[in-house]
Amino acid sequence: MNKIVILIHCSDQKGIIAAVTNYIASIGGNIIYLDQHVDSDQDVFFMRLECEFAKDHFNLDTIKDNFSKNLANPFSMSWSIQLQERKPRMAIFVSKYDHCLYDILSRYSTGELPIEIPIIISNHHDLSSVAARFSIPFHHIPFTKETKESGEKEQIAVLEKYQIDFIVLARYMQIITPNLIALYQNKIINIHHSFLPAFPGAKPYHSAFNRGVKIIGATSHYVTEELDEGPIIEQDITRVTHSHSIEDFIMKGKDLERMVLARAIKLHAERKTMVYNNKTVVFS
Amino acid sequence: MNKIVILIHCSDQKGIIAAVTNYIASIGGNIIYLDQHVDSDQDVFFMRLECEFAKDHFNLDTIKDNFSKNLANPFSMSWSIQLQERKPRMAIFVSKYDHCLYDILSRYSTGELPIEIPIIISNHHDLSSVAARFSIPFHHIPFTKETKESGEKEQIAVLEKYQIDFIVLARYMQIITPNLIALYQNKIINIHHSFLPAFPGAKPYHSAFNRGVKIIGATSHYVTEELDEGPIIEQDITRVTHSHSIEDFIMKGKDLERMVLARAIKLHAERKTMVYNNKTVVFS
Amino acid sequence: MNKIVILIHCSDQKGIIAAVTNYIASIGGNIIYLDQHVDSDQDVFFMRLECEFAKDHFNLDTIKDNFSKNLANPFSMSWSIQLQERKPRMAIFVSKYDHCLYDILSRYSTGELPIEIPIIISNHHDLSSVAARFSIPFHHIPFTKETKESGEKEQIAVLEKYQIDFIVLARYMQIITPNLIALYQNKIINIHHSFLPAFPGAKPYHSAFNRGVKIIGATSHYVTEELDEGPIIEQDITRVTHSHSIEDFIMKGKDLERMVLARAIKLHAERKTMVYNNKTVVFS
Amino acid sequence: MNKIVILIHCSDQKGIIAAVTNYIASIGGNIIYLDQHVDSDQDVFFMRLECEFAKDHFNLDTIKDNFSKNLANPFSMSWSIQLQERKPRMAIFVSKYDHCLYDILSRYSTGELPIEIPIIISNHHDLSSVAARFSIPFHHIPFTKETKESGEKEQIAVLEKYQIDFIVLARYMQIITPNLIALYQNKIINIHHSFLPAFPGAKPYHSAFNRGVKIIGATSHYVTEELDEGPIIEQDITRVTHSHSIEDFIMKGKDLERMVLARAIKLHAERKTMVYNNKTVVFS
Repeated sequence: MNKIVILIHCSDQKGIIAAVTNYIASIGGNIIYLDQHVDSDQDVFFMRLECEFAKDHFNLDTIKDNFSKNLANPFSMSWSIQLQERKPRMAIFVSKYDHCLYDILSRYSTGELPIEIPIIISNHHDLSSVAARFSIPFHHIPFTKETKESGEKEQIAVLEKYQIDFIVLARYMQIITPNLIALYQNKIINIHHSFLPAFPGAKPYHSAFNRGVKIIGATSHYVTEELDEGPIIEQDITRVTHSHSIEDFIMKGKDLERMVLARAIKLHAERKTMVYNNKTVVFS
Repeated sequence: MNKIVILIHCSDQKGIIAAVTNYIASIGGNIIYLDQHVDSDQDVFFMRLECEFAKDHFNLDTIKDNFSKNLANPFSMSWSIQLQERKPRMAIFVSKYDHCLYDILSRYSTGELPIEIPIIISNHHDLSSVAARFSIPFHHIPFTKETKESGEKEQIAVLEKYQIDFIVLARYMQIITPNLIALYQNKIINIHHSFLPAFPGAKPYHSAFNRGVKIIGATSHYVTEELDEGPIIEQDITRVTHSHSIEDFIMKGKDLERMVLARAIKLHAERKTMVYNNKTVVFS
Repeated sequence: MNKIVILIHCSDQKGIIAAVTNYIASIGGNIIYLDQHVDSDQDVFFMRLECEFAKDHFNLDTIKDNFSKNLANPFSMSWSIQLQERKPRMAIFVSKYDHCLYDILSRYSTGELPIEIPIIISNHHDLSSVAARFSIPFHHIPFTKETKESGEKEQIAVLEKYQIDFIVLARYMQIITPNLIALYQNKIINIHHSFLPAFPGAKPYHSAFNRGVKIIGATSHYVTEELDEGPIIEQDITRVTHSHSIEDFIMKGKDLERMVLARAIKLHAERKTMVYNNKTVVFS
Repeated sequence: MNKIVILIHCSDQKGIIAAVTNYIASIGGNIIYLDQHVDSDQDVFFMRLECEFAKDHFNLDTIKDNFSKNLANPFSMSWSIQLQERKPRMAIFVSKYDHCLYDILSRYSTGELPIEIPIIISNHHDLSSVAARFSIPFHHIPFTKETKESGEKEQIAVLEKYQIDFIVLARYMQIITPNLIALYQNKIINIHHSFLPAFPGAKPYHSAFNRGVKIIGATSHYVTEELDEGPIIEQDITRVTHSHSIEDFIMKGKDLERMVLARAIKLHAERKTMVYNNKTVVFS
C-alpha cells in the first residue's frame, strides 16, 4: 500500500471534514488516521490525515492536482500532501557541546528517527571526531563577527548542495541569521535549556539556580528572529532540590535537552507539527 | 446552540467518517470536535463527535431516528447520541475512608464536575456527617455476609429511585455483586490504590513497601466480575524512596487516589470513554 | 517518648555535626532523623534533626538553655527547637476562589495536615458558607484602596487574637501589606498559578495560552515585598496541548494549585523548610 | 584535597552518628555530605558520608585500619571506604538490542559517567560494530544451552582479566548463571522493560498493551537468582493511550530503558546505593 500524510490549515468553515473525507473515499483511499483541531478564538481549522491507497493506479501528482482544484482552492486551504515513506533530510548545526549530537546520531543509528542526515555543519572542529564515529560528513564553516555574512553564504550553499529539508541546532551556540531563517521558515528546530518563557537567553541553569526553582526544564522550538521566542514544539521538566549545585542542574538538564530535542525532531519528521500565530499544533 | 455528543463503535469499514460527517452537514450541524481511533489488530473503529445545531427546528429524537436508519443500521454501529448539557446522575458508594469522598464533594461544590449527585450509599454510618456537610442525602444500607443479597436489593432499589446513571466506588471496601455489575455494565468506576496490574487485591501499599518499589500508583477502572481486572480508565504514579514508611506511602497515595478518581469521573461524565475488549478508548 | 525537631543554620565550620550529635547523645536523646546541607557557594550550613527522649526528666526549656549555651553561641547558629506534637496555628486568607479553600479544609478534616485552623479571613462574604460547612470561624474584613490601612490593622488584631503562627493565601487576590509581611516573615505562604519565574503577576493562564507553552505550572512561595519573587517552596506542572482552551488551562491548573499549596503547607507545618538568600532548603 | 566516600550499615544503636562524626573530626576530616536512614521496622541503620582531607599526611590504609578498630568492630558495621576519584570498572553484556548500548557509550564518551568500560561481552557478533565506533574492546562468547557452563567460565575469565567491578546487562537477553551472580553479588545491574512487579518475564510491552494500561515503565534492579525479583534501584514511567500500538510502546519504552539504566549505573558508580533485605537504600 502507498501511504500519504495530508496537512490542512484554513479558516473554519462548515463541511470541511465531510468534503475532505468524501474526496479520499471517492479516489479509493482508506483513512487510517484523522485528527482535527479548531481554534475557536481565531476561527482556524487544522486537520491531519493518514490515508492508504492500493499500489496500482496510485499517482501522487494526480492526487495533489485534484486536491488542489476540488478542495484547497474552494476552501482556501494551506496544505501539503506527502508520501509517508519519504524521509526528510536533516542538517545538524553544532558548536562544542556533544551530548545532543551523540544522542541524535545514536537514535539515527538505531533507526528510531525517520530522517536522513546528510551533513553536520559546525563553526568549530571539535566535534568532527563524533561525526566520524557515525560516518556522517562534517563541514567546518568557521566565522567571526566580521565574516558572519560570508559564513552564512557558505552555510546556505552547503544546505542547498545536500538538499536539506530542515535544520536542527543541537546546542549550537550561535544566533541564526535572518536570511537563513527566511529560507527555512518553521524548519529550524532549536533546543533551549530552560522551560521557556522562564530564563531565555544565556546561562539559564545559573539563573534557575539563583532563583531557587524546584523544577528545571528544556524547550524545543522553531527559530524565529526573536531569540527564544519562536513557536514551542515540546517541553519537559525535572525536579531539583536545594541539594543540587549548578553542575547538577547542568547534568540533569542534559537529559532533558536530549529527550526534548529528539521528540521535536521526530514530530517534525513525521509531519505532525503545524505552525500558526507563533504557536504549534502538534498531532501526536 | 444545542450541542450533542455522538459516540460510535463498529467494525472498521471504508467511508464511515465521510458518511457520518456528511450526515451531520446535511442536517445543518457543525462539527466542533472529531476524534477517531482504529484498532488495527481487531479491525474496530471508534469515533467521538461534538456537534452544534441552531436552536430552532432542533429535534433530538428525529436526529436519533435518522442516525439509526441512515448510519447505525447500514454500518452495524454501537452508538449513542446525547445532549451535552444533560448531566449524568452519579451515586457514590463509601465505607469508612473519607479522603476521596471529600475530594469528590469539594469538586462537585466548586462546579468542576458536570454531574448530579443525588445520593451517597454506605454500609456504615461513619461518613454521614461528611454527606451532611455538603447537603447530599446519605442512605445507610448495612449488611453482613449473610444479608448481602437483601443488601444488594436495597442498593438497587435506591439506585432506581434516584435514577442513577453511574456509580463511583470511593474507596468502598466491599466487593460488588454480579447482579449490580450486570445492571451497570461499564458504569461502575472503582479506584484501586496501586498501578495495576501490580499489587491487585488487599493492602497494595504494604506489598509495594515490601517489594521496595521506587514508584507507587493508583488506578481507576470499570468494575467487572474479575476483581481489579476491569478496563483501566486512568492511572497515575508518584515517586517514593527508601526513606518513606508504609504510612508515607498511604499518605502520598491518597493524593493519587483523589486525582485519578476525579479524572475518571470527569472523563466518564463527559462521555469521553468507550469500552471494548476489556480496554478503554479515552478521547480526552 | 517526647519528640523534638531541631533546625540549625550557621556559617559552615568543621565539627558542627559531631558537636550537635554528641550533645544529643550526652542528654540521652536518640536521633531518629538527621539531614544536613552545605551551600558551598555561600559557605552556609543547614541541619534538621528529629530526636526522641524518654518521658521522665524531659524538660524542653532546659534542653533549649543548654543548646543555646553549648552549641548555638559558640557556633553562632540561627536555630529553633520545637515539640513535634505541637501543631502550628494557621490562618487562611481568601477572596472568592473556593477550590483551594475546599481542598485545605478537606485535608484538615481528614487529619492529613498537622495544623490548627482557628480562623479564615476574607475581604468578601462569598466563602463564609464554605467555612460554615467545615465549622471554622470566618472573619469578614472588607476594605477599599482608601481603607487598606485600617483593614490591615484589623487583620493583625485578628491574627494576634487567634495566636496565629503562619498564614496561607488560598488564591487571595489582594497584595499583602509590608507591615503584615514584616510581622510574619517567611510565614506567609502564597500559591501562584504559574511555574515561576514564568508568568508572574495577573492572568498567568492567559499569558501561558498566548505563548503556546506545552506545560503549565503552579508555585507556592513565601511572600516578600517583591510580588511573586519570594522563596519558592514547591512547584509542579502538568502537560497541555493545542487542543486545550484557556478554560481548560484554568481547570487543569486548579488541580496543580491545590496540590502544590497543600504540599507547601505540610512542609511548613512539619518544620521542614528553612529560608536564606531568598531560597528555601526543604528537608523532605 | 582527597575525598573519600564512607558507607555504613549496621543494627540501629544510640550514638553511632556522634561516634562516626567525632572520628572524622579527630583525624582532620571535613564532612561535606552526610545522609542517614533508619529502617525502624527492621532496626537497621544506614549512613553515607563524603569527607575531604588535606593532601599531606593522608593515608587511606591508616584511615581504614583505624575505622575498623574504633568504629566498625564495636558497632558491628558492614562498611566500605573508597577514594571518590577512583572510577569503578564496568563490563557491559549485550545481545542484539543496541539502544541501551549506544546510550551508555555516548554518555561515557561525553564524560557523564564516572566509570571505566574496559570490555563489552556478547553472545552475538551483531553489536561489535557499535563497540568499534566507540573504540571499546568487544569479546564474543557464543554459547548454546549445552555449552552454557563453558560460556560462563569464559565470561568469568574475561571479567577477571579486565578486573571488572560491576556488570551492566544492557538488554542482554540471557539468564545470568548462579555462579556469576554469586561472584558479583549486588554488582550486576539489569534493565527490565516494565514497572516491576507488573509484567515480569518475557514480552512485557505486549502484556501491557493487552491489559490496556495507561502507563508503561522500566525498572533497573540488581540481579538475583529470582528472575526480575532483585532489589530495585530505579524506575520510571511514561503515559500511553489507546492510540498507541505495541510498536509505539516499544519505541516509547526505549527512552525509559535508556534513562533508567543510565541513572542506575550512575548511582551505583557513585557509591550511592546500599542493598539489604532485597531492597535498596539510594542516597541521591
